[in-house]
Amino acid sequence: MNAFDQKKSAILREISSNSSQSPDASPKGTIDELCLPIIEVINSHPDMVTTSSCSGRVSVFLEGIKTNFQIGAKGNQGRWLFVTHHPEDLPMWYKKIEFEYRESQPSEMNETQRYILFKFEPLILHVKCRDSESANLLYSTAMACGFRESGIGSNNIVGIRTAIKLDVPFGCLEGETLVSFVSEAYLEILTKLSLDRFTENFKKMDKLKEALVMMGSTKKNQAQIETKEERRLRKMNEGLARREAIKEEKERKRQSQNNE
Amino acid sequence: MNAFDQKKSAILREISSNSSQSPDASPKGTIDELCLPIIEVINSHPDMVTTSSCSGRVSVFLEGIKTNFQIGAKGNQGRWLFVTHHPEDLPMWYKKIEFEYRESQPSEMNETQRYILFKFEPLILHVKCRDSESANLLYSTAMACGFRESGIGSNNIVGIRTAIKLDVPFGCLEGETLVSFVSEAYLEILTKLSLDRFTENFKKMDKLKEALVMMGSTKKNQAQIETKEERRLRKMNEGLARREAIKEEKERKRQSQNNE
Repeated sequence: MNAFDQKKSAILREISSNSSQSPDASPKGTIDELCLPIIEVINSHPDMVTTSSCSGRVSVFLEGIKTNFQIGAKGNQGRWLFVTHHPEDLPMWYKKIEFEYRESQPSEMNETQRYILFKFEPLILHVKCRDSESANLLYSTAMACGFRESGIGSNNIVGIRTAIKLDVPFGCLEGETLVSFVSEAYLEILTKLSLDRFTENFKKMDKLKEALVMMGSTKKNQAQIETKEERRLRKMNEGLARREAIKEEKERKRQSQNNE
Repeated sequence: MNAFDQKKSAILREISSNSSQSPDASPKGTIDELCLPIIEVINSHPDMVTTSSCSGRVSVFLEGIKTNFQIGAKGNQGRWLFVTHHPEDLPMWYKKIEFEYRESQPSEMNETQRYILFKFEPLILHVKCRDSESANLLYSTAMACGFRESGIGSNNIVGIRTAIKLDVPFGCLEGETLVSFVSEAYLEILTKLSLDRFTENFKKMDKLKEALVMMGSTKKNQAQIETKEERRLRKMNEGLARREAIKEEKERKRQSQNNE
């Protein structure tokens, strides 16, 4: 068994034994169930295995104590006030936290201010691939599905990323009080915007899953036993990736030296 | 001259002739002057050439007319209300736009609502490299400098990205009126937070520039005439990238199947 296959079986064993009784080392301890279908598709591919995943989430985080200026400081009493991967848990989240609303009052701001950050973060996947050919194939497929911030990292690990985000510092800690700079009505608007983003996120995840089902293998890794139908789907998919690469190159040329 | 060198000279010619009188195809038309020092360092490397760049910016964008749900819809009367790459142009930006402030009033929200988006976007660079070795070297150097969302795309183009962002939909268009869901005091807070992010962004850009100066070439592309001092700097830099890669691998293991 070569190094990739060894690593893959180790990871698959870990995944299959993972549960809330037997957590992994992540803060949450278990795999997001909404990720399981796409993880399954990826891991059924002979040249790929997922190494980390998040299906998308909303979080409200209170930054930790800062000794000097740090954005989003974790640790040192930084803590989640709310976090969910499920849109149905989102409505009225702000009613569960005791905020003092001070919308129109300018706030004293200094370097060590501990802000409260509202974030929507979309699906993110890291996938280890057998070789650079399969990493490139996965990368092109993800780009073609609109995961435009994807990239290949070291060891043929592909990061699949998109830009559907919200990143809103909306309050701070004053003494023991959680102060909101914005009204409850605005937090409701953020909630609605997050629900829209969840919808968009899951739509994109589904599109990617479909494309991955159709993706096939690289020429190099392909078994000789590809059926006619498999070949048709693979060709279709390769064509899509190629067209997308050309479109992207054109876009790059258009933007030339300036990223908008 | 091989393909890479041809492409590189064409790009360098384009850059050197670029000015507001002779704009490139980007919306702004010229290269951000704050990017010029780092672009110069990159382009002085025999195996690399920048294909797009943005030094970081604040933008306030009114989404275009939507026929159905689209986040951040460009085109169709979408327009910039404000944009700057320069922190010194930021203070009081909101005084130049006529907003109607309706902080505490819940807003009617529907699929075709045209939102006003406040964004801070950090430095982003795309760099075409001669081969996968030089792409990997650049990628590791960027990761080691904290550009954790970097990745290698197709054709050995490295995207250098970081996550210092703000992404705040804070108003909408009602008839001809630009409505703000938040108070002027909160827009002032966003301004202050953006200034902090500009500072952090430029600090990171400088760190990357320093690391790029010291980076040297890949073994494969190295000329035989490396001096002792050059070799020392290269080794130091390679060590840094290696340590960072190990740290990253550990972090990945720790996070296991869940990206927090």
